[in-house]
Amino acid sequence: MTISVVGHSNPDTDSVTAAIALSALFNAQGTEAKACMQIAAADLNPESTTVLKRFGLAAPELLEDAAGKDIALVDFSDLAQGPANLDSANVVAVVDHHKIGDVTTNSPILFRAEPVGCTGTVLNKMFKDAGVAIPKDVAGGMLSAILSDTVNFKSPTCTEDDKAAVNDLKAVAGVDDTEELFMAMLKAKSAVDGVPAKDLLFRDYKDFDMKGKKVGVGQLELATLDQVADIRADLMKAMEEVKADGRHTVLLMLTDVVKEGTDLVVVSDDPALVEKAFDGKLEGNCMWIQGMMSRKKQTVPNLQKAFGC
Amino acid sequence: MTISVVGHSNPDTDSVTAAIALSALFNAQGTEAKACMQIAAADLNPESTTVLKRFGLAAPELLEDAAGKDIALVDFSDLAQGPANLDSANVVAVVDHHKIGDVTTNSPILFRAEPVGCTGTVLNKMFKDAGVAIPKDVAGGMLSAILSDTVNFKSPTCTEDDKAAVNDLKAVAGVDDTEELFMAMLKAKSAVDGVPAKDLLFRDYKDFDMKGKKVGVGQLELATLDQVADIRADLMKAMEEVKADGRHTVLLMLTDVVKEGTDLVVVSDDPALVEKAFDGKLEGNCMWIQGMMSRKKQTVPNLQKAFGC
Repeated sequence: MTISVVGHSNPDTDSVTAAIALSALFNAQGTEAKACMQIAAADLNPESTTVLKRFGLAAPELLEDAAGKDIALVDFSDLAQGPANLDSANVVAVVDHHKIGDVTTNSPILFRAEPVGCTGTVLNKMFKDAGVAIPKDVAGGMLSAILSDTVNFKSPTCTEDDKAAVNDLKAVAGVDDTEELFMAMLKAKSAVDGVPAKDLLFRDYKDFDMKGKKVGVGQLELATLDQVADIRADLMKAMEEVKADGRHTVLLMLTDVVKEGTDLVVVSDDPALVEKAFDGKLEGNCMWIQGMMSRKKQTVPNLQKAFGC
Repeated sequence: MTISVVGHSNPDTDSVTAAIALSALFNAQGTEAKACMQIAAADLNPESTTVLKRFGLAAPELLEDAAGKDIALVDFSDLAQGPANLDSANVVAVVDHHKIGDVTTNSPILFRAEPVGCTGTVLNKMFKDAGVAIPKDVAGGMLSAILSDTVNFKSPTCTEDDKAAVNDLKAVAGVDDTEELFMAMLKAKSAVDGVPAKDLLFRDYKDFDMKGKKVGVGQLELATLDQVADIRADLMKAMEEVKADGRHTVLLMLTDVVKEGTDLVVVSDDPALVEKAFDGKLEGNCMWIQGMMSRKKQTVPNLQKAFGC
C-alpha cells in the first residue's frame, strides 16, 4: 500500500515540505509514498503557497481520513493533531522535532525525533544517512521550512544542526541569499490586509489538552505590530468566538520578528493563571513578552507548567 | 544533572549494553551520563554476566526509582517497563527498536527508534553520525547484544542493518569468530541445571497489557528442548503461581535455537484464544510452532490481534 505522508493539522511550511521530502526519500528507497496534507491546496497559508510556487513544488494532496491507511507522520506525533481515525490507521514512520506525543504502534517502526528547530533538519540528515541525493526543488522547500521555523535563526529553538542543514540545502537548492528568501516568506506570511480575523487566528494555530482543559494557541509573525493595529478588535472577537466553542483559554501570539518579542493576547477563564505562566501583567487583554518567539519551546511549556501538566 | 541511562525491567544483554553504550556516547559528547539498570549486578542473567566479564565491562548501577531524575531510555519506550515513577521523571532521550510505547514528554527530545533487530544496531549508527569512536569494550558489548537479539542472524527481526553493524563492531571489538561468541552466550544463557524454575521463567520475561488483561510472556532460548525435559512440571508450577498474581495468561516460549522453533507453554483463563492467536492446537499445555523465534515480532503481535488490541 502506498504510504501517505502527512503533517499536523493547520499545516505550516515545515509540515508541508516535510511531507514532500519524506515521500521523496521513501520513493527513492523503493517504498511507494505520496505527500499529503489535511487541507486543500487553496487553504494553504500564504507563506507555504509562496514557497511551493517559488520552488515549483506541487501541493500535497488532501488527506482527511486515515482509516485503514499506511501513514507516516511528519512534524507531529500527537494523535489529536492528525487526520480523522489516525488511531485506527497503520502508522509506519514518524519524523519530528517536537515533544513526544501519544502515538503508539503494535510493531517496531522508524521514529526519528530530534530537539532541533525544524523537521527539515532531521530529514536532511536522513537523506545523508541513506545516501540519497535531495532533488533541487525539494531542497528549496526544506530550506524554506528551516528559515521559517527558526525565524531566520533567531528562535531559541534554532540549533547548530539547523544552521548546518541550511548550509547544505542552499547549495543543493541553488539559493545564494537566504535573507532575501526569508524576507519574501515573512512578507507573504505577515500580510493581513483584507484577511478575515478568524483566518488570521487560524493561520498557525494549535489546540492543546492541558490537564483536561482545552487551550488554543495561535501565532502571527509580523514585521511590525503596526500591521495589526487597526484589526485588534476583530481579532479579539474571533478569539472570543473560538473560546466559546469549549475552550478554557485562547491565546494569540503577535510576534514581532524584528523586535524579537511577542504581544500575547489573552482570552481565558483564568487570566491570572496565564499571567502566572509568563510572569507578566496583562494590560487590557495583552502583555508584551520580550524574547518570546517560539510557541513550542516557550509558550506551551510555560502553560503546561502553570496548568500543572 | 547526570543523565541515568536505563533499559527495560528484567534486562537482557541489549538493555544492559545499550545503557553502557549510550552513556559512553553522551559522555564523549560532553553530556554527563551513567549506565543504569533496574536490578542489582548479582541478578543479571547468565548471558549478560558472561558478556560483561568477557569484555571487561562494569555492570550498570542499580536504579529503582526515577523520580526527579533525568532519564534516557534504551531498548523500550513503555512506561510500564521502566523504573518506579518514570512518569514523573524528565525523559531526555529514547533509543529503541521496539514498537512505540506510551512515553510522552513536555519538550522536544532525541527519540530514535528503528525497525531493526537490536538497539545496538541503532547505537552503532548514532556513534557514526556523531563521529565518535566506540571504545573497544563497549563495541564488544554491542556486538554481543546484536548476536543475542537476532539469535545469530536467524530471528525474523534481523535486518541487513544488523549484519552491517556486526561487521563494523567485530572489527572494533577485535572479535574474529562471532559464531564462537554466540555459542558461548547460548551456553551461558541456556544453562538450566540447578536454577529454580521461577528464575528460569523470569530470565527473559515481560508483562503486557492486552485490552485490560495482563499477559506475561517469558522466553528461554535453548540449544535443545532436552535441557528442560526433567523440569517441565516445575516450570508449569512456577507459571501457575505467576498467573495467580492477577494475570489472564502466562506463556513460556521454549525456543530451540538449532531447530528454529518454539514449544509454547500456556497457562491461561482462555487457552482457546491462545490457540487461535497462533493457529495451533495445544497438546496438554504445549504447542510446537515451527519458525517462532521472536517474542516481539511474532508472539506479541499475534496475541495483540487475538485479544483485539
